[in-house]
Amino acid sequence: MLPKDMLALGTKRSAIRELFEYGKIRKAQVGEDKVYDFSLGNPSIPAPKEVDEALSELLSTDNTVALHGYSSAQGDAIVRKTIAEYLNSVHGTSFNADNLYMTCGAAASLCISLRALLLPGEEVIAFAPFFPEYVVFVEGQGGKVAVVPPTASFQPDLEAFENAINENTKAVIINSPNNPSGVVYSEETIKAIAQILEKKSRELGREIFIIADEPYRELVYDADTTVPYITKYYKNTLVCYSYSKSLSLPGERIGYILVPDEVCDSKNVYACICGAGRALGYVCAPTLFQQVVAKCCGKTGDVSAYKKNRDLIYSELSALGYECVKPDGAFYLFVKALEDDANAFCERAKAHDLLIVSGDGFFCPGYVRISYCVDEKTIKNSIPAFRALAEEYAK
Amino acid sequence: MLPKDMLALGTKRSAIRELFEYGKIRKAQVGEDKVYDFSLGNPSIPAPKEVDEALSELLSTDNTVALHGYSSAQGDAIVRKTIAEYLNSVHGTSFNADNLYMTCGAAASLCISLRALLLPGEEVIAFAPFFPEYVVFVEGQGGKVAVVPPTASFQPDLEAFENAINENTKAVIINSPNNPSGVVYSEETIKAIAQILEKKSRELGREIFIIADEPYRELVYDADTTVPYITKYYKNTLVCYSYSKSLSLPGERIGYILVPDEVCDSKNVYACICGAGRALGYVCAPTLFQQVVAKCCGKTGDVSAYKKNRDLIYSELSALGYECVKPDGAFYLFVKALEDDANAFCERAKAHDLLIVSGDGFFCPGYVRISYCVDEKTIKNSIPAFRALAEEYAK
Repeated sequence: MLPKDMLALGTKRSAIRELFEYGKIRKAQVGEDKVYDFSLGNPSIPAPKEVDEALSELLSTDNTVALHGYSSAQGDAIVRKTIAEYLNSVHGTSFNADNLYMTCGAAASLCISLRALLLPGEEVIAFAPFFPEYVVFVEGQGGKVAVVPPTASFQPDLEAFENAINENTKAVIINSPNNPSGVVYSEETIKAIAQILEKKSRELGREIFIIADEPYRELVYDADTTVPYITKYYKNTLVCYSYSKSLSLPGERIGYILVPDEVCDSKNVYACICGAGRALGYVCAPTLFQQVVAKCCGKTGDVSAYKKNRDLIYSELSALGYECVKPDGAFYLFVKALEDDANAFCERAKAHDLLIVSGDGFFCPGYVRISYCVDEKTIKNSIPAFRALAEEYAK
Repeated sequence: MLPKDMLALGTKRSAIRELFEYGKIRKAQVGEDKVYDFSLGNPSIPAPKEVDEALSELLSTDNTVALHGYSSAQGDAIVRKTIAEYLNSVHGTSFNADNLYMTCGAAASLCISLRALLLPGEEVIAFAPFFPEYVVFVEGQGGKVAVVPPTASFQPDLEAFENAINENTKAVIINSPNNPSGVVYSEETIKAIAQILEKKSRELGREIFIIADEPYRELVYDADTTVPYITKYYKNTLVCYSYSKSLSLPGERIGYILVPDEVCDSKNVYACICGAGRALGYVCAPTLFQQVVAKCCGKTGDVSAYKKNRDLIYSELSALGYECVKPDGAFYLFVKALEDDANAFCERAKAHDLLIVSGDGFFCPGYVRISYCVDEKTIKNSIPAFRALAEEYAK
């Protein structure tokens, strides 16, 4: 009598969460410093001081009724205006408050956008490797995921992409910097994707949307890495943003959806987003943190710590003979497993108390994800275990 | 190409929100104190000092990474344990952390519970008058609402209730203290509802759930008013709670779902709730306010202000000849319109700058809702307008 799909989702946790929970138990058994937990994408650096200052300033108000009161469903108008102006200053765009809809984080942004766009049975294309919950979000809103495999360098396979588009395709999710590969899609790639979408839209006589899932936008580590702002390359682009990673606020659930005026029928798309927010029970985004993020536009935690971690783990594992994709952004290292079966490899890693996640869930078998948003010493201390694991396979 | 239902929901705002937005414009035209805005159920009293103290204590931590980090999807284990123990101390129950799932407020609690329970096309019974968004939440999760009319005293019509139950009935929503009537369902009523459900469950061979929507539980004004705790009267009861009204934190989106062990197949119901939370994009409830509410168990704002408002508006409007239901709880007064068409009555009230909501949206035509969670002086200043309105009809 209970819905089978909900029961399955609730009974079988995500593999990442399972591993994280195992790690907590294992740490209690053998000690915190003996378990190298690279499972979760939970920021390891504190929120920037501007967050603390904003909280302190906001909470000193005499009017807590307004501070903690409902905002409009789409978010506080001044908060939205402030964010729009910040985006314009960075990207040379001309957004205003009415292009923004504040949300309870990236997952909410994605679910609301998908519910707003999808008719029953429509398809959403995702480029492997991708965050496994995309499947949950798309299917939860009545759609289906079509998986496009990656090229050897973990850029999208454009030919396979073009072939995947059909009369049911409603949207494409782009996640760059990418979880789990750390790859940033180049301007050339984005232009090619846009060109294919324009061509296929014309051929099929239907609008196809890009949903840009961008929580890692600010987490890039080299001066020559730029993350193209996709609204400038393709008109039907919605941006789903979250402050979870940039401001280290993942638990506070705060982000937004951006619907540019260039989107076809943009007023109605925005209205569908308002409707979807209601239908999914999102009354408004948390109001205190709406105000906080507006006061922290353009700020980030000290991401140089992630860069240091990236350089360390990439060079150490490469030196040990592991085949790694050098990440340009996010805080994940994607590594070729030392046997074909990445799940089996992860189990053998676990015996060395290395908690790493199989790429199978990310639709990229044969690889594993290492989340390096951890203390530097966790990385340093883990190297002997990675060495022992490699030696075990070399025998 | 866009979903018609989402477009309709996003284009046609709720009547309450429309009126509230009109009020903001009108106030800018004629002055704040000339518009008597009784539209929204937005708490008018500040959060209790314990909320400020909890925030201040929590934010003084050295470990903001943990404070703002993800919690488990079901909520922080210690937070859930603390709330379970509080409930046990008040109700003599024996809940534990595993009976609770923290949410982003009452709307999220309801949508997640409905998604967890409903198979496509199943029905949810609601007792009129009820909060209009119930229809949005139920239909948004694939179900249908069956409306049971009230008796003259705004208690549920039990015979009509029994007749409404059929082989598609999955749940009944009970909201007491009630929005919009302010009525509290008596123990006798709850027992009768439970008895009917037990009988019909046996007859139909299916489990039927009560979803107790309880944001107003603590807002009752007389010593002899008790709000029965429904889990003690009917085993298949889920409680959807929100701290929005009791702690005056409506914008912060924090509440919970309680799944007692007595619920049939309770572990699987809980699993479905976890699954539904994932499918709707709720990663976890906001973590800072999870900690805040755990530190404020049993606290409320100064609800005596609402009692004072209730006594004032009830006695004044009664004296003017308005036929009012005396509210035992919540912060709404439900009043008989002075003509059959409550919408027309609300329009005539609007000409006196009295912003009140038609009962039609609450499935109770001929009545209007007055939200008295306002400054006392708004009530006092509004009385001449209510008098003028009554006199207009007396002509």
